[in-house]
Formats: sequence, structure tokens, C-alpha cells
Amino acid sequence: MARKQGSHADITGPKVQQAALRLIADHGFAAVSMRQIAAEVGVQAGALYNYTPDKQSLLFDLMQGHMDDLLGALEAAAFQGDALTRLEAFTRFHIRFHLPRADQVFVSYMELRNLSAANFAEIEKMRHRYEDALEDILRVGQAEGVFAVADTRVATMAIIGMLTGLSHWYRDGGRLDMIEIEAIYWDLVRKSVAKPA
Amino acid sequence: MARKQGSHADITGPKVQQAALRLIADHGFAAVSMRQIAAEVGVQAGALYNYTPDKQSLLFDLMQGHMDDLLGALEAAAFQGDALTRLEAFTRFHIRFHLPRADQVFVSYMELRNLSAANFAEIEKMRHRYEDALEDILRVGQAEGVFAVADTRVATMAIIGMLTGLSHWYRDGGRLDMIEIEAIYWDLVRKSVAKPA
Repeated sequence: MARKQGSHADITGPKVQQAALRLIADHGFAAVSMRQIAAEVGVQAGALYNYTPDKQSLLFDLMQGHMDDLLGALEAAAFQGDALTRLEAFTRFHIRFHLPRADQVFVSYMELRNLSAANFAEIEKMRHRYEDALEDILRVGQAEGVFAVADTRVATMAIIGMLTGLSHWYRDGGRLDMIEIEAIYWDLVRKSVAKPA
Repeated sequence: MARKQGSHADITGPKVQQAALRLIADHGFAAVSMRQIAAEVGVQAGALYNYTPDKQSLLFDLMQGHMDDLLGALEAAAFQGDALTRLEAFTRFHIRFHLPRADQVFVSYMELRNLSAANFAEIEKMRHRYEDALEDILRVGQAEGVFAVADTRVATMAIIGMLTGLSHWYRDGGRLDMIEIEAIYWDLVRKSVAKPA
């Protein structure tokens, strides 16, 4: 029998994730208890174990869910065209995906240290798939003769660092809106890898 | 009378800071107790209060100490020459200062949320002084006609994000040594702000 739409588990699962994300972003994984998460969701601590076996699984689910969303969105975007066009699409995609997810970005980076070795390896694998997508664009651009970077892997990490760093300082309602910021970052990225004319 | 070299306070102060940095980097500020820090240093919990009034002060001292070291080193470096030369010096300085201080970088970013409002404002002021030093170089370069960035403030934040991001992924003993990495990053930074030929 198919699971009922809107069953208890369907509703509470996302609520648990949301509460855990918020609490971990605010206080850090080690300082947050299952009891606190349960209280935030409005269920008994015991009931939480219907949705997750332990806190480690909850953290892993959060990070895996974030990376699943990212890789799914990347695949759906299916960048087309030459390397320069795809690099622009990747740059704008990265900014648009990450900027509204400041808590996920923060927790995904900060709590890597609290993943078990097996879970860490799993998340690393997903991160590498994302990085590989950018590196592939840089490699094609080198082959096309439009990019000139000394090392495509280092350039990949540098560009992702630059773009993700935006989440650390950008705040809505500032001097520049997201569209303007995106254009400025794309200009910097484009030039940083360009072959000198 | 001058304080004795190597007095109890002189030795224990840095030890407390070191222990606090290590524990906070590993577990997060909220999860670390004064008792744990005392145990790590090898003193009674009560003795810790000779060196710091509370955990908030300890965190602030760590972050302020890090920014003091950074601003002091920047001033001592006293970059000379035209904007391009100074930008290269800044890029290499930033990498060399931050790469060996992964724990400080991590805690300084991660624990901003745990600073009191007054302490946060103080640290922000110091960060802005550092950012201003880079923006000043970009402004001079624009005036000299060698740089062409759409917005010197955004470019400043983007470059610092790119350079600091290096601390998140670089590990000693990898495929490339620090000298090679530095050269690749400098190439990316230089091109990202360059005026098209």
C-alpha cells in the first residue's frame, strides 16, 4: 500500500530537519541535544527516534540532503554551449543556489569535523562530483583555447571559494542587490581564467 | 618592580589561549566548558579565572589576538610600490599568514555568532581595517589605470574569500607545495582585476 500523502512521518521529517539545521547553525552540533531538537519540533524526545536513529544520522542526513539538492539542481540546469557560456551559467547557478541557504552552507562547512569517517567520505565524494563539474568546464575551455589557468584543480577550488565566500558577507537589503553582485562576481571569475588577448 | 620573565601568568596565559583554541576548533564554543579548558591546561577550574573573567572574554581574546597579529603583520610588511606590486604582496602575505593558522581562521569565522554584540562590533572594526587595506590597493590601481573592477568593495570581499578559502581545502604534503599554490592564486587574482589589454 502506498504511503499516505501528509502522513505523520511526511510532515514531521522535514520539521525535524529544519529544527536541527536551525539549532546546529546557532549553537553547533556538539552543543545541541536530541531533546532540544524534539522540543523545537514539539514532540517527545522518544518520538524523534522514529525519524532518525541518532544525532550523527541527523547531521549526515542534513549534509547529504544539501548535497543531493545541489547535485540535483546542477543536473537539472544542464549547462549548454561553449566553455565560457557554461562557466557563466555555473557561476550564476552557484550564487543563486547558495545565497538563500546560508545556514546549510555554514553547517556543511563547520560540522564536517563532526561527521564519522564513513559519513565524511560520503559527503566528500558528493563535493568532489560538484567540483568536477566546474573543473570539466575549465578543462574544456583550456582545450578550446579561451581559458588559460595554470592548474584546473586549484582554479576550481579558488573559484568555488570565492563564490561561496559571498554567503559569509552578503546581506539582503545592502548597497547592491543580488543581480548586481552576480554580475560583478561573474566579471571577476571570467577574467581570472581568461587567456590573455 | 618589573614582572618576572616566565612568571606563572606569563606561561599560563598563552597555554590557556592555546587550549581554548584547540578545544573550540574541535567541539565549538558552546560545547566547551571552562572546566575542560582548565583540565587541558592542567590547572584547577578556579585558577582559570585568574586569567580570564569568563568564557566570552576568552573567545573575544582569541579573536582579537588573531586580528591584532594580522593587522600587526600587515603594518610590519609595509607594502611598497605601484598597485600591482602591492596587490601581489598582499596576496602572498594573506596566504602565508593564514595557511599555518587553520584553527584560528576556522574559529574566527565560525564563532562570530557567539560573540556579544559589543565584542562582535569590535572584531568587525578590525576586519574592516584589514579589508580597507586591500580596497585601498584596488582603488589606487583603478586610478593608475592598471585595474578595472566594477566595484572595489565587492572585489575586495571576493578576493579575500578566494584567498581564505584556501585554508579550507589545502593540506600540507599534497600534490602542490605552498609556493606553487601561491603562484597559481596570484595569477588568478592578478587577472581577475586586470584592465583588459
